[in-house]
Amino acid sequence: MSEGFALDPQLARESVFVADRVLCRVLLMDDARFPWLVLVPRRAGLVELFDLDARERTLLFDELEQAARALRSVASSAKLNVGALGNVVRQLHVHVVARREGDAAWPGPVWGHGPRRPYDESARATRVSAIAARLGTG
Amino acid sequence: MSEGFALDPQLARESVFVADRVLCRVLLMDDARFPWLVLVPRRAGLVELFDLDARERTLLFDELEQAARALRSVASSAKLNVGALGNVVRQLHVHVVARREGDAAWPGPVWGHGPRRPYDESARATRVSAIAARLGTG
Repeated sequence: MSEGFALDPQLARESVFVADRVLCRVLLMDDARFPWLVLVPRRAGLVELFDLDARERTLLFDELEQAARALRSVASSAKLNVGALGNVVRQLHVHVVARREGDAAWPGPVWGHGPRRPYDESARATRVSAIAARLGTG
Repeated sequence: MSEGFALDPQLARESVFVADRVLCRVLLMDDARFPWLVLVPRRAGLVELFDLDARERTLLFDELEQAARALRSVASSAKLNVGALGNVVRQLHVHVVARREGDAAWPGPVWGHGPRRPYDESARATRVSAIAARLGTG
């Protein structure tokens, strides 16, 4: 499924690798303000959600749900935000963000909300390994 | 499927009815800045995307795709934005927005971007009937 797939350079710069699932690469957005995963279907040439075929749509939904569960196991949250925007990075990618009341952007969206605040190194490693373990890939 | 379903009052205030599909009520967000539909699964008690069962997930994806096609038939766009946020209105609802470069919020998200600018009455009616016709419900 992943022939010809290459992660967009901007996504690669702003995130760290967590795991490869059947369909998607799971990334942790390197922004300590928000517990935030990005799922990138590992097929070349995808732009819109509707470029996915029926099997991939089911896989995406399942993998998003597992990602959301993993996020919620490491961070308390009031609400999930799920979005596929792609105005800046065109490679299809889907955000899953665990929001809590009073977080840095609440109740607005996280996208475009001020500069990222990268994790410090040990907090980043701890979060990645906790999420990977929860996904069964740690 | 729709027993006990009642549209959230804030969603009702900010949008106009377009059509009922098998799963979702389709609403046009009453904001002339952006071609913007909102799909609300017509089942009581839904909050997160993952509250949908397998059949509903497939229906939602199909109905989102049809909504996106209908939007694109009435408005040129460079990119679709699809999102389920729900930080303010907790009833599960999914946004489909047709974005173009240089629109009022480009390249940021439309959510929380300044005040709505309601359509004038004839433009609203024209847009609703064009989208409903395209959905096969006009």
